[in-house]
Amino acid sequence: MNTPSSLEALIEALRCLPGVGPKSAQRMAYHLLQRDKPGALRLAHSLGSAVENLRHCAKCNSFSEEEVCVLCSSGKRDDSLLCVVEMPADLLMMEQTQCYRGMYFVLMGRLSPLDGVVARDLPLDRLIRRAQEQSCEVILATNFTVEGEATAHYLATLLRAQGIKVSRIARGLPVGGELEHVDSGTLAQAVLERREVRE
Amino acid sequence: MNTPSSLEALIEALRCLPGVGPKSAQRMAYHLLQRDKPGALRLAHSLGSAVENLRHCAKCNSFSEEEVCVLCSSGKRDDSLLCVVEMPADLLMMEQTQCYRGMYFVLMGRLSPLDGVVARDLPLDRLIRRAQEQSCEVILATNFTVEGEATAHYLATLLRAQGIKVSRIARGLPVGGELEHVDSGTLAQAVLERREVRE
Repeated sequence: MNTPSSLEALIEALRCLPGVGPKSAQRMAYHLLQRDKPGALRLAHSLGSAVENLRHCAKCNSFSEEEVCVLCSSGKRDDSLLCVVEMPADLLMMEQTQCYRGMYFVLMGRLSPLDGVVARDLPLDRLIRRAQEQSCEVILATNFTVEGEATAHYLATLLRAQGIKVSRIARGLPVGGELEHVDSGTLAQAVLERREVRE
Repeated sequence: MNTPSSLEALIEALRCLPGVGPKSAQRMAYHLLQRDKPGALRLAHSLGSAVENLRHCAKCNSFSEEEVCVLCSSGKRDDSLLCVVEMPADLLMMEQTQCYRGMYFVLMGRLSPLDGVVARDLPLDRLIRRAQEQSCEVILATNFTVEGEATAHYLATLLRAQGIKVSRIARGLPVGGELEHVDSGTLAQAVLERREVRE
Protein backbone atom coordinates (compact mmCIF):
# COMPACT_ATOMS: atom_id res chain seq x y z
CA MET A 1 0.00 0.00 0.00
CA ASN A 2 0.97 3.63 -0.17
CA THR A 3 1.29 4.34 3.55
CA PRO A 4 4.36 6.53 4.14
CA SER A 5 7.12 4.52 5.84
CA SER A 6 7.46 6.75 8.92
CA LEU A 7 3.69 6.45 9.52
CA GLU A 8 3.88 2.68 9.13
CA ALA A 9 6.84 2.57 11.56
CA LEU A 10 4.88 4.61 14.13
CA ILE A 11 1.80 2.36 13.87
CA GLU A 12 4.02 -0.71 14.29
CA ALA A 13 5.87 0.85 17.25
CA LEU A 14 2.61 1.75 19.06
CA ARG A 15 1.72 -1.94 19.10
CA CYS A 16 4.32 -2.51 21.82
CA LEU A 17 1.77 -0.97 24.23
CA PRO A 18 -0.27 -3.60 26.09
CA GLY A 19 -3.81 -4.04 24.73
CA VAL A 20 -3.12 -2.08 21.53
CA GLY A 21 -3.86 -3.98 18.30
CA PRO A 22 -3.43 -2.86 14.68
CA LYS A 23 -6.67 -0.83 14.55
CA SER A 24 -6.07 1.07 17.82
CA ALA A 25 -2.45 1.70 16.84
CA GLN A 26 -3.64 3.24 13.58
CA ARG A 27 -6.22 5.39 15.38
CA MET A 28 -3.60 6.55 17.92
CA ALA A 29 -1.11 7.45 15.17
CA TYR A 30 -3.69 9.47 13.23
CA HIS A 31 -4.82 11.23 16.38
CA LEU A 32 -1.29 12.22 17.40
CA LEU A 33 -0.26 13.40 13.93
CA GLN A 34 -3.51 15.20 13.20
CA ARG A 35 -4.47 16.68 16.56
CA ASP A 36 -1.65 16.46 19.08
CA LYS A 37 1.87 16.80 17.70
CA PRO A 38 3.14 18.50 20.90
CA GLY A 39 1.73 15.52 22.86
CA ALA A 40 3.56 13.11 20.56
CA LEU A 41 6.88 14.90 21.09
CA ARG A 42 6.29 15.08 24.85
CA LEU A 43 5.59 11.33 24.86
CA ALA A 44 8.75 10.62 22.85
CA HIS A 45 10.81 12.63 25.31
CA SER A 46 9.21 11.08 28.42
CA LEU A 47 9.79 7.57 27.10
CA GLY A 48 13.47 8.28 26.54
CA SER A 49 13.97 9.96 29.88
CA ALA A 50 12.05 7.29 31.83
CA VAL A 51 14.01 4.44 30.23
CA GLU A 52 17.25 6.29 30.97
CA ASN A 53 16.57 7.45 34.53
CA LEU A 54 14.48 4.74 36.16
CA ARG A 55 15.90 1.69 37.87
CA HIS A 56 14.76 -0.67 40.58
CA CYS A 57 15.12 0.43 44.22
CA ALA A 58 17.80 -1.73 45.84
CA LYS A 59 15.54 -2.37 48.82
CA CYS A 60 11.88 -2.56 47.69
CA ASN A 61 12.47 -3.29 43.96
CA SER A 62 9.93 -0.62 42.91
CA PHE A 63 10.83 1.95 40.25
CA SER A 64 13.15 4.67 41.52
CA GLU A 65 15.48 7.32 40.22
CA GLU A 66 17.82 6.84 43.18
CA GLU A 67 19.70 3.75 44.38
CA VAL A 68 17.19 3.51 47.27
CA CYS A 69 13.70 5.01 46.80
CA VAL A 70 12.18 7.80 48.91
CA LEU A 71 9.91 5.47 50.87
CA CYS A 72 12.66 2.96 51.74
CA SER A 73 15.08 5.68 52.83
CA SER A 74 12.53 7.71 54.82
CA GLY A 75 13.46 6.25 58.22
CA LYS A 76 9.93 6.81 59.51
CA ARG A 77 8.65 3.40 58.44
CA ASP A 78 8.17 0.33 60.65
CA ASP A 79 10.78 -2.18 59.46
CA SER A 80 9.28 -5.10 61.39
CA LEU A 81 6.69 -5.45 58.62
CA LEU A 82 7.40 -6.27 54.96
CA CYS A 83 4.44 -6.15 52.58
CA VAL A 84 4.85 -8.07 49.30
CA VAL A 85 2.83 -6.72 46.35
CA GLU A 86 2.82 -7.55 42.66
CA MET A 87 3.19 -4.11 41.08
CA PRO A 88 4.02 -0.49 42.05
CA ALA A 89 0.31 0.34 41.48
CA ASP A 90 -0.56 -2.04 44.33
CA LEU A 91 1.97 -0.30 46.55
CA LEU A 92 0.25 3.02 45.81
CA MET A 93 -3.15 1.53 46.70
CA MET A 94 -1.74 0.23 50.02
CA GLU A 95 -0.30 3.67 50.75
CA GLN A 96 -3.65 5.31 50.03
CA THR A 97 -5.30 3.26 52.79
CA GLN A 98 -3.00 5.15 55.21
CA CYS A 99 -3.20 2.15 57.59
CA TYR A 100 0.16 0.58 56.78
CA ARG A 101 3.45 2.09 57.92
CA GLY A 102 5.78 -0.84 57.19
CA MET A 103 8.18 -1.51 54.34
CA TYR A 104 7.40 -3.00 50.90
CA PHE A 105 8.76 -5.47 48.43
CA VAL A 106 7.47 -5.21 44.85
CA LEU A 107 7.68 -8.47 42.85
CA MET A 108 7.16 -6.67 39.50
CA GLY A 109 5.03 -9.56 38.38
CA ARG A 110 3.43 -12.79 39.54
CA LEU A 111 3.93 -16.46 38.89
CA SER A 112 2.11 -17.09 35.64
CA PRO A 113 3.39 -20.13 33.75
CA LEU A 114 0.94 -19.50 30.88
CA ASP A 115 2.64 -16.13 30.23
CA GLY A 116 6.06 -17.73 30.67
CA VAL A 117 6.68 -16.19 34.12
CA VAL A 118 8.15 -18.81 36.47
CA ALA A 119 9.78 -18.53 39.90
CA ARG A 120 13.26 -17.68 38.61
CA ASP A 121 11.84 -14.62 36.75
CA LEU A 122 10.85 -13.01 40.07
CA PRO A 123 13.48 -11.56 42.48
CA LEU A 124 12.73 -14.13 45.18
CA ASP A 125 16.34 -14.43 46.43
CA ARG A 126 16.34 -10.71 47.16
CA LEU A 127 12.97 -11.00 48.94
CA ILE A 128 14.21 -13.81 51.20
CA ARG A 129 17.49 -12.01 51.96
CA ARG A 130 15.57 -8.83 52.75
CA ALA A 131 13.13 -10.67 55.07
CA GLN A 132 15.99 -12.45 56.86
CA GLU A 133 18.06 -9.28 57.34
CA GLN A 134 15.08 -7.42 58.76
CA SER A 135 13.80 -10.47 60.71
CA CYS A 136 10.30 -9.17 60.10
CA GLU A 137 6.79 -10.46 59.43
CA VAL A 138 6.06 -10.79 55.71
CA ILE A 139 2.53 -9.78 54.67
CA LEU A 140 1.55 -11.29 51.34
CA ALA A 141 -0.63 -8.78 49.47
CA THR A 142 -0.64 -10.29 45.98
CA ASN A 143 -3.97 -10.17 44.14
CA PHE A 144 -6.75 -12.67 44.82
CA THR A 145 -6.59 -13.89 41.23
CA VAL A 146 -5.53 -17.43 40.33
CA GLU A 147 -1.97 -16.25 39.60
CA GLY A 148 -1.80 -14.00 42.68
CA GLU A 149 -3.04 -16.79 44.95
CA ALA A 150 -0.56 -19.26 43.44
CA THR A 151 2.24 -16.73 43.97
CA ALA A 152 1.19 -16.17 47.60
CA HIS A 153 1.08 -19.93 48.23
CA TYR A 154 4.53 -20.41 46.69
CA LEU A 155 6.04 -17.50 48.63
CA ALA A 156 4.48 -18.66 51.91
CA THR A 157 6.06 -22.12 51.54
CA LEU A 158 9.42 -20.62 50.60
CA LEU A 159 9.50 -18.06 53.41
CA ARG A 160 8.20 -20.37 56.15
CA ALA A 161 10.98 -22.85 55.24
CA GLN A 162 13.42 -20.09 56.25
CA GLY A 163 11.66 -19.64 59.59
CA ILE A 164 10.10 -16.34 58.56
CA LYS A 165 6.63 -15.38 59.89
CA VAL A 166 4.19 -15.05 56.99
CA SER A 167 0.64 -13.67 56.81
CA ARG A 168 -1.86 -13.05 54.02
CA ILE A 169 -4.24 -10.08 53.80
CA ALA A 170 -7.85 -11.06 54.58
CA ARG A 171 -10.42 -12.27 52.10
CA GLY A 172 -14.12 -11.59 52.65
CA LEU A 173 -16.96 -9.26 51.80
CA PRO A 174 -15.94 -5.76 50.77
CA VAL A 175 -16.85 -2.84 53.04
CA GLY A 176 -20.45 -1.90 52.20
CA GLY A 177 -20.95 -5.30 50.53
CA GLU A 178 -24.35 -7.04 50.61
CA LEU A 179 -24.70 -10.81 50.83
CA GLU A 180 -27.32 -10.74 48.09
CA HIS A 181 -24.94 -9.23 45.56
CA VAL A 182 -21.60 -10.83 46.40
CA ASP A 183 -20.37 -13.84 44.40
CA SER A 184 -20.70 -17.22 46.09
CA GLY A 185 -16.93 -17.87 46.14
CA THR A 186 -16.32 -14.73 48.20
CA LEU A 187 -19.19 -15.53 50.55
CA ALA A 188 -17.95 -19.10 51.03
CA GLN A 189 -14.47 -17.77 51.92
CA ALA A 190 -16.00 -15.23 54.28
CA VAL A 191 -17.80 -18.04 56.12
CA LEU A 192 -14.70 -20.27 56.22
CA GLU A 193 -12.49 -17.45 57.49
CA ARG A 194 -15.05 -16.12 59.98
CA ARG A 195 -13.70 -14.40 63.09
CA GLU A 196 -14.87 -14.95 66.62
CA VAL A 197 -16.78 -11.97 68.02
CA ARG A 198 -15.43 -10.95 71.42
CA GLU A 199 -16.76 -8.40 73.80
CA MET B 1 3.16 10.23 46.68
CA ASN B 2 6.61 8.81 46.11
CA THR B 3 6.34 8.07 42.38
CA PRO B 4 9.63 9.04 40.70
CA SER B 5 9.14 12.16 38.58
CA SER B 6 10.23 10.62 35.27
CA LEU B 7 7.71 7.78 35.80
CA GLU B 8 4.97 10.29 36.61
CA ALA B 9 5.88 12.31 33.50
CA LEU B 10 5.67 9.18 31.33
CA ILE B 11 2.26 8.18 32.74
CA GLU B 12 0.99 11.72 32.14
CA ALA B 13 2.42 11.79 28.60
CA LEU B 14 0.79 8.45 27.68
CA ARG B 15 -2.61 10.01 28.38
CA CYS B 16 -2.35 12.00 25.14
CA LEU B 17 -3.25 8.73 23.36
CA PRO B 18 -6.97 8.49 22.55
CA GLY B 19 -8.92 6.19 24.87
CA VAL B 20 -6.11 5.97 27.44
CA GLY B 21 -7.11 7.00 30.97
CA PRO B 22 -4.98 7.17 34.13
CA LYS B 23 -5.17 3.42 34.87
CA SER B 24 -4.26 2.28 31.35
CA ALA B 25 -1.48 4.85 31.17
CA GLN B 26 -0.01 3.45 34.40
CA ARG B 27 -0.29 -0.12 33.11
CA MET B 28 1.38 0.85 29.82
CA ALA B 29 4.23 2.65 31.60
CA TYR B 30 4.92 -0.31 33.90
CA HIS B 31 4.76 -2.72 30.97
CA LEU B 32 7.22 -0.72 28.88
CA LEU B 33 9.69 -0.15 31.73
CA GLN B 34 9.50 -3.69 33.08
CA ARG B 35 9.18 -5.82 29.96
CA ASP B 36 9.87 -3.84 26.80
CA LYS B 37 12.50 -1.11 27.08
CA PRO B 38 13.62 -1.61 23.45
CA GLY B 39 9.97 -1.16 22.40
CA ALA B 40 9.77 2.07 24.41
CA LEU B 41 12.87 3.48 22.74
CA ARG B 42 11.63 2.37 19.31
CA LEU B 43 8.32 4.13 20.00
CA ALA B 44 10.09 7.31 21.13
CA HIS B 45 12.13 7.33 17.94
CA SER B 46 9.15 6.61 15.64
CA LEU B 47 7.11 9.40 17.23
CA GLY B 48 9.89 11.90 16.66
CA SER B 49 10.55 10.83 13.10
CA ALA B 50 6.83 10.69 12.15
CA VAL B 51 6.17 14.18 13.53
CA GLU B 52 9.23 15.46 11.68
CA ASN B 53 8.74 13.74 8.30
CA LEU B 54 4.99 13.56 7.72
CA ARG B 55 2.95 16.31 6.17
CA HIS B 56 -0.29 16.49 4.20
CA CYS B 57 -0.24 15.64 0.50
CA ALA B 58 -0.86 18.85 -1.47
CA LYS B 59 -3.47 17.10 -3.61
CA CYS B 60 -5.35 14.50 -1.51
CA ASN B 61 -4.55 15.88 1.99
CA SER B 62 -3.61 12.40 3.31
CA PHE B 63 -0.36 11.87 5.22
CA SER B 64 2.68 11.85 2.99
CA GLU B 65 6.45 12.20 3.22
CA GLU B 66 6.56 13.96 -0.16
CA GLU B 67 4.87 17.16 -1.38
CA VAL B 68 2.47 14.98 -3.39
CA CYS B 69 1.82 11.39 -2.24
CA VAL B 70 2.55 8.23 -4.21
CA LEU B 71 -1.09 7.65 -5.15
CA CYS B 72 -1.73 11.21 -6.38
CA SER B 73 1.46 11.29 -8.46
CA SER B 74 1.03 7.78 -9.95
CA GLY B 75 -0.51 8.99 -13.24
CA LYS B 76 -2.43 5.70 -13.60
CA ARG B 77 -5.50 6.94 -11.76
CA ASP B 78 -8.75 8.17 -13.31
CA ASP B 79 -8.93 11.90 -12.50
CA SER B 80 -12.57 12.26 -13.50
CA LEU B 81 -13.54 10.81 -10.11
CA LEU B 82 -12.77 12.34 -6.70
CA CYS B 83 -13.68 10.26 -3.66
CA VAL B 84 -14.05 12.17 -0.36
CA VAL B 85 -13.30 10.13 2.78
CA GLU B 86 -12.94 11.10 6.44
CA MET B 87 -9.61 9.49 7.36
CA PRO B 88 -6.60 7.81 5.69
CA ALA B 89 -7.86 4.48 7.09
CA ASP B 90 -11.01 4.89 4.96
CA LEU B 91 -8.84 5.51 1.92
CA LEU B 92 -7.02 2.23 2.61
CA MET B 93 -10.35 0.38 2.88
CA MET B 94 -11.48 1.85 -0.46
CA GLU B 95 -8.19 0.78 -2.05
CA GLN B 96 -8.61 -2.74 -0.70
CA THR B 97 -11.89 -3.14 -2.59
CA GLN B 98 -9.81 -2.80 -5.82
CA CYS B 99 -12.91 -1.44 -7.57
CA TYR B 100 -12.01 2.25 -7.47
CA ARG B 101 -9.30 3.76 -9.67
CA GLY B 102 -10.08 7.46 -9.18
CA MET B 103 -8.46 10.11 -6.99
CA TYR B 104 -9.09 10.85 -3.31
CA PHE B 105 -9.58 13.74 -0.95
CA VAL B 106 -9.11 13.04 2.77
CA LEU B 107 -10.97 15.44 5.08
CA MET B 108 -8.93 14.39 8.15
CA GLY B 109 -12.09 14.61 10.21
CA ARG B 110 -15.82 15.16 9.99
CA LEU B 111 -18.24 17.88 11.01
CA SER B 112 -18.85 17.26 14.69
CA PRO B 113 -19.98 20.36 16.58
CA LEU B 114 -20.06 18.41 19.86
CA ASP B 115 -16.30 17.79 19.55
CA GLY B 116 -15.76 21.37 18.43
CA VAL B 117 -15.14 20.48 14.76
CA VAL B 118 -17.01 22.95 12.51
CA ALA B 119 -16.84 23.61 8.76
CA ARG B 120 -13.86 25.96 8.93
CA ASP B 121 -11.76 23.24 10.64
CA LEU B 122 -11.97 21.06 7.52
CA PRO B 123 -10.01 21.89 4.33
CA LEU B 124 -13.20 22.54 2.31
CA ASP B 125 -11.72 25.38 0.20
CA ARG B 126 -9.05 23.03 -1.03
CA LEU B 127 -11.65 20.34 -1.78
CA ILE B 128 -13.78 22.74 -3.87
CA ARG B 129 -10.73 24.10 -5.72
CA ARG B 130 -9.56 20.55 -6.44
CA ALA B 131 -13.00 19.48 -7.71
CA GLN B 132 -13.27 22.57 -9.94
CA GLU B 133 -9.77 22.19 -11.38
CA GLN B 134 -10.39 18.54 -12.23
CA SER B 135 -14.02 19.16 -13.29
CA CYS B 136 -14.82 15.70 -11.95
CA GLU B 137 -17.61 13.83 -10.20
CA VAL B 138 -17.25 13.95 -6.40
CA ILE B 139 -18.16 10.69 -4.63
CA LEU B 140 -18.97 11.28 -0.95
CA ALA B 141 -17.72 8.28 1.04
CA THR B 142 -17.93 9.64 4.59
CA ASN B 143 -19.21 7.20 7.23
CA PHE B 144 -22.92 6.45 7.68
CA THR B 145 -22.79 7.77 11.23
CA VAL B 146 -24.70 10.88 12.30
CA GLU B 147 -21.57 13.03 11.87
CA GLY B 148 -20.58 11.40 8.59
CA GLU B 149 -24.09 11.86 7.15
CA ALA B 150 -24.20 15.50 8.25
CA THR B 151 -20.79 16.08 6.65
CA ALA B 152 -21.94 14.45 3.40
CA HIS B 153 -25.09 16.57 3.38
CA TYR B 154 -23.11 19.76 3.98
CA LEU B 155 -20.53 18.92 1.31
CA ALA B 156 -23.22 18.00 -1.24
CA THR B 157 -24.93 21.39 -0.80
CA LEU B 158 -21.62 23.22 -1.03
CA LEU B 159 -20.35 21.36 -4.10
CA ARG B 160 -23.62 21.39 -6.02
CA ALA B 161 -23.74 25.19 -5.54
CA GLN B 162 -20.51 25.29 -7.57
CA GLY B 163 -22.07 23.21 -10.34
CA ILE B 164 -20.09 20.11 -9.40
CA LYS B 165 -21.67 16.65 -9.88
CA VAL B 166 -21.96 14.92 -6.50
CA SER B 167 -22.85 11.32 -5.58
CA ARG B 168 -22.99 9.34 -2.34
CA ILE B 169 -21.96 5.69 -1.93
CA ALA B 170 -24.97 3.37 -1.58
CA ARG B 171 -26.70 2.41 1.64
CA GLY B 172 -28.40 -0.96 1.98
CA LEU B 173 -27.98 -4.53 3.19
CA PRO B 174 -24.37 -5.75 3.38
CA VAL B 175 -23.23 -8.51 1.05
CA GLY B 176 -24.31 -11.81 2.64
CA GLY B 177 -26.79 -9.92 4.86
CA GLU B 178 -30.06 -11.52 5.95
CA LEU B 179 -33.28 -9.53 6.38
CA GLU B 180 -33.94 -11.30 9.68
CA HIS B 181 -30.73 -10.03 11.24
CA VAL B 182 -30.33 -6.56 9.80
CA ASP B 183 -31.43 -3.49 11.82
CA SER B 184 -34.70 -1.90 10.78
CA GLY B 185 -33.10 1.44 9.85
CA THR B 186 -30.87 -0.23 7.27
CA LEU B 187 -33.76 -2.31 5.90
CA ALA B 188 -35.97 0.79 5.62
CA GLN B 189 -33.23 2.60 3.68
CA ALA B 190 -32.73 -0.44 1.45
CA VAL B 191 -36.44 -0.37 0.59
CA LEU B 192 -36.46 3.42 0.00
CA GLU B 193 -33.36 3.24 -2.19
CA ARG B 194 -34.43 0.13 -4.10
CA ARG B 195 -33.19 -0.26 -7.67
CA GLU B 196 -35.26 -1.29 -10.65
CA VAL B 197 -34.36 -4.76 -11.89
CA ARG B 198 -33.73 -4.75 -15.62
CA GLU B 199 -33.12 -7.65 -17.93
